[in-house]
Amino acid sequence: MDPRLGRMASSSLAFLLLLEGGMFSPSSPPDGLQERVFQYIDLHQNEFVQTLRDWVAVESDSVQPLPHLRRELLRMMAQAADKLRHLGATVASVDLGSQQLPDGQTLPIPPIVLADLGNDPKKPTVCFYGHLDVQPARPEDGWLTDPYELTEVDGKLYGRGATDNKGPVLAWINAVSTFRALEEDLPVNTKLILEGMEEAGSIALEELVQKEKDRFFAGVDYIVISDNLWLSRRKPALTYGTRGNSYFTVEVKCRDQDFHSGTFGGILNEPMADLVALLGSLVDSSGHILIPGIYDHVAPLTEEERNMYKAIDLDLEEYRNSSQVKKFLFDTKEEILMHLWRYPSLSIHGIEGASNEPGAKTAIPGRVVGKFSIRLVPHMDMSVVDKQVKQHLEYIFSKRNSSNQMAVSMVLGLHPWITNVKDNQYLAAKRAIKTVFGTEPDMIRDGSTIPIAKIFQDVIQKSVLMMPLGAVDDGEHSQNEKINRWNYIEGSKLFAAFFIEMAKLP
Amino acid sequence: MDPRLGRMASSSLAFLLLLEGGMFSPSSPPDGLQERVFQYIDLHQNEFVQTLRDWVAVESDSVQPLPHLRRELLRMMAQAADKLRHLGATVASVDLGSQQLPDGQTLPIPPIVLADLGNDPKKPTVCFYGHLDVQPARPEDGWLTDPYELTEVDGKLYGRGATDNKGPVLAWINAVSTFRALEEDLPVNTKLILEGMEEAGSIALEELVQKEKDRFFAGVDYIVISDNLWLSRRKPALTYGTRGNSYFTVEVKCRDQDFHSGTFGGILNEPMADLVALLGSLVDSSGHILIPGIYDHVAPLTEEERNMYKAIDLDLEEYRNSSQVKKFLFDTKEEILMHLWRYPSLSIHGIEGASNEPGAKTAIPGRVVGKFSIRLVPHMDMSVVDKQVKQHLEYIFSKRNSSNQMAVSMVLGLHPWITNVKDNQYLAAKRAIKTVFGTEPDMIRDGSTIPIAKIFQDVIQKSVLMMPLGAVDDGEHSQNEKINRWNYIEGSKLFAAFFIEMAKLP
Repeated sequence: MDPRLGRMASSSLAFLLLLEGGMFSPSSPPDGLQERVFQYIDLHQNEFVQTLRDWVAVESDSVQPLPHLRRELLRMMAQAADKLRHLGATVASVDLGSQQLPDGQTLPIPPIVLADLGNDPKKPTVCFYGHLDVQPARPEDGWLTDPYELTEVDGKLYGRGATDNKGPVLAWINAVSTFRALEEDLPVNTKLILEGMEEAGSIALEELVQKEKDRFFAGVDYIVISDNLWLSRRKPALTYGTRGNSYFTVEVKCRDQDFHSGTFGGILNEPMADLVALLGSLVDSSGHILIPGIYDHVAPLTEEERNMYKAIDLDLEEYRNSSQVKKFLFDTKEEILMHLWRYPSLSIHGIEGASNEPGAKTAIPGRVVGKFSIRLVPHMDMSVVDKQVKQHLEYIFSKRNSSNQMAVSMVLGLHPWITNVKDNQYLAAKRAIKTVFGTEPDMIRDGSTIPIAKIFQDVIQKSVLMMPLGAVDDGEHSQNEKINRWNYIEGSKLFAAFFIEMAKLP
Repeated sequence: MDPRLGRMASSSLAFLLLLEGGMFSPSSPPDGLQERVFQYIDLHQNEFVQTLRDWVAVESDSVQPLPHLRRELLRMMAQAADKLRHLGATVASVDLGSQQLPDGQTLPIPPIVLADLGNDPKKPTVCFYGHLDVQPARPEDGWLTDPYELTEVDGKLYGRGATDNKGPVLAWINAVSTFRALEEDLPVNTKLILEGMEEAGSIALEELVQKEKDRFFAGVDYIVISDNLWLSRRKPALTYGTRGNSYFTVEVKCRDQDFHSGTFGGILNEPMADLVALLGSLVDSSGHILIPGIYDHVAPLTEEERNMYKAIDLDLEEYRNSSQVKKFLFDTKEEILMHLWRYPSLSIHGIEGASNEPGAKTAIPGRVVGKFSIRLVPHMDMSVVDKQVKQHLEYIFSKRNSSNQMAVSMVLGLHPWITNVKDNQYLAAKRAIKTVFGTEPDMIRDGSTIPIAKIFQDVIQKSVLMMPLGAVDDGEHSQNEKINRWNYIEGSKLFAAFFIEMAKLP
C-alpha cells in the first residue's frame, strides 16, 4: 500500500470522499470486513497515537535499578492491564516478588500481565508476547526531543519505547479494539503476555512460562513476537531464525598476584603471552573460525534458501555508511547476510585480570581470563561446540609447553532458534503483509540471540512467528528512538489482517 | 663479620669486656679509627633504631593523593632537614610548588632537601641520594603489626619504609654522625639529596638535578644510591646496572563505538582479532622476542662477565618458592639472572578499550589499544628499537589485509644504565664490604628500571654506585616490609667504612 494513503486517509475529508464512492456500503461481501477495519484504523489513528503518547510518557526503565523507576514500571503494567480489561479481556497481573541487587538493595519486579480474550474452540488461539519496559534515555545523551514525550516530526514519532516495544504492543491492541469498536467478532482467540523486565534480562519470565504451560498457555496454538525490526526502511519482513550464543572464558594462571615486569620479565611463561596465542588461534583474518569441526553441523545451504537471500532488499552502501564501517569482510548482500544469520561467528570481547586503564602500567598480569563467544546457528550442538573449543584450546596450549595452568569454561549457552517458514502462521502473515503493504516480505533472521523465541518454542511447543513492525532506522536502544506513524498505523492493520488470515487457515 | 657480633656488642657489658682488652686505647694506629667507629655504632644501635622508629612513624605516603598525607610528607622532609642541620650540615629545602591532579585537586609537592657537609678540597665529595616517601600501607591488607610503628620481632624491624628507603638513608646519616660524635674528621665531603616523591614517579627531581648541576652538584665526584636490595638474605651486593624500558601502545580501530556481536559478528575485521594477532607475534613461548633485529645490539657476553654470574649466590629452589612460580623458563642460576639483567624481555600488560570486568559482556570492541614494553639492555638503542617494533607490527598487520587502522607509538622510553665495576668507588665499596662482612659482594644488576641512576650519570656525568643494604626478603612495597637490625646496623658501618676507603683512593 502506498504510504501516502495513510496520511491522506487521516483527513476526514478524504475519507468522506472515499465513502461517497460507496466502497464501504453495508452490502459489502463478508471480506468487506477487512476494508472496514482498515478504514476504522485510519480514521482513529490520532487516538492510537495518543495512546502511544500516554504509554511513552511512563518512564518504565527497567535497566537502572532505581526505586522511582520501578514505581513507573508498576504504573506501566497497571495501565496496560486496565486497557486490556476495558477491551473485555480477563486479566491477571502475576506478582513476581522482588529482586535483590548486588548492593543489597531490594526492588520489586513488575508483574507479568496475562490477558485472555475469547475462547471459541472453533477459532485458533494466538498468543502475543510483548514488553513494556524500556532502555534508559537521558536528554543529555543527544536526544533532540524529550524522550518521554512522544513528538511527531515529518511522520516520525520520537520517544523512548516507541518502537521497542510499546508501539508494536499497542498495534496488536489497536487491532483487537478495532474489531470490538466495529462490534465485529474477533476472528481469533487472543492472549497477551506482557512483561516489564525484558531489557533487564527477562528475570522470572521463563519460570512463569513453565508454570503457566498447562494453564494460561494450555489452549494456545501460535505465538507471535514483534520485538525486532525490518531490514529496510520501507519493506516489511518476517523473521524466522535467531542465532544462539555460547560464551567462553579461558583462564591462564601463573599465580594470583601480578609480577613486576622488571623483576620477572624474561624468565616467566607470561600468562598474557599464552592468552594472546590462545585467542589468536580461534579465528583468522577473514573471519573463518579455526576450531576443528566447528562447521561440521552447520546446516547446508539449499538452493531454495539461497534464493530467499537473493530476494532480500539491502542497500549495501547505505548499510556500510550507517554502520560507520570502512569495509566489511564480504562484498555481496548474500554473503554479508549469510554470515550474520546462518553461519557462526566468533568474537573476542575482552580480558579480565589485565589492566584496561589509560596509562603505562608495567605489571605482568599473574592470572588473566580471556572472553569470547560463538554465535551458534542450526544445527550446531552446544555440547559439541563446548567440547570442540576445549579440545582446540588444550591442543594449542599443550604445544606452547607453558608451565601455567589453563582452564576453559562455557559460561553461557543459548540455543539458536529457527522455525519453518512454511508454517501456517507464516503463510497467514505473508498474506496479511501482501494485503496491507502490497509486497512479499523480506524473509530474514536475526544475527543476535532472542532467548524468548526459543523459550516459547521449547516450553509451549507451538510455532513462534516473529513479525516486526518497525523500520531498520528506528534506533531501538539509541538516542532518538522512533516509530514511523506509517509503520505504527499500517502495523495495526497488519495485525488485524493477520487475525483474518489466521481464521481462514484450515 | 659474624652477624651475632652485632647483637653481642649491643650489650654494654660485652662492650666493657672488649674495652678492657685495650682494643680502643688512644695509642691505636690511624686505622684504629675504623674500630672505634664500628664500636660506637654497635654501642648506639638502639638510638639509631629509635631514630628509624621516629621516621617510620611519619606516614609519608606519596602515592595516595590525600591532603593529610601530603602534610605528613612535608613533616617528614622537615624532620630530615632538622636532623641534618644538627649534624652541622648546610641544608636547603627546595620548594617545588604544587601538583595538579586529574580531578582538579591541587597538592603541594614536598621539598627536596639538599644538604652539604664539608668542603675540604683534598677530600673526595660523595653525594648520597635517598627518598623519604613510602608506598601506601593499610593494616587490613595483611600487616601483622602497625605499619607505622616500627616493631622488632626476632631481629627484624617491621614497618613501612624501614628498608625502602628510610633505613638506608639513616644508615648514611648514622655513619656521618658517628664521626661527628667521636669528634673525628669525616674522611669525605658528603652531600645528600633527599626527595619525597620517589614512589610517585620522582616528580620534579630531574628538573632540579639539571638546575643544580653547576651549583649543588658542582664539586660532586661520586654519587651513591642505596635504594634496592641484595640478591640474598645474608650476602651483600653491589649493583652495577639496571635495564631500561620502552613502552609501546598499538591501537587497532574500526570505529569509535563498540558493536553488538549479534548484529555485526561475522562480517567485520574485528579489532580484537587483529590485536591478539599483533600481540601474539611479539614473543614466543620460550620468551624469545620475535621482532627482527631486536637482539642485534645486545652486548655480547664475555668470559669475564660469565664468571661474575657464576660467583653469585642464588638458591634457585628458595627463589622459585618465594616467587610462587611453578617453573621458570630457564633451569640454571646463570641463565635466569642473565635473562633478568643482561637480555631484553618483552611483556604484554593489558588492553584498553575491551571489557576487563567480570561477567559475560558480548560487545565487539570498536577500538582497542594493546600495551607492551621491552626492558632494554646495553647497547640497545631506543630509537632503533622503536623503528624495529613499528616495522614488525606494520608487516604483521599488512599480512592480515584488515580494513582497520593500526597505529603504534612508543609512549615511554628509559635508557638502561650500566657502570664500570672497576670504577674507583666500586673498588672502595668492595673493600668496605670485605671489612664489614668479610666477603666479596655479589655483583648484581637490577632487571627493572631505576631512572635516577641514569639521570645522575647523564646530568652530573660522575660515576654512580648502587650499594644496597637490605636483604632480598625485605618486602619493599609489600605488606610486612622490614629491615633486619643486622642489615641496618652493619649497613651503617658499611657506609662509615666506605668513607674511610674512599679517602684512601688516589
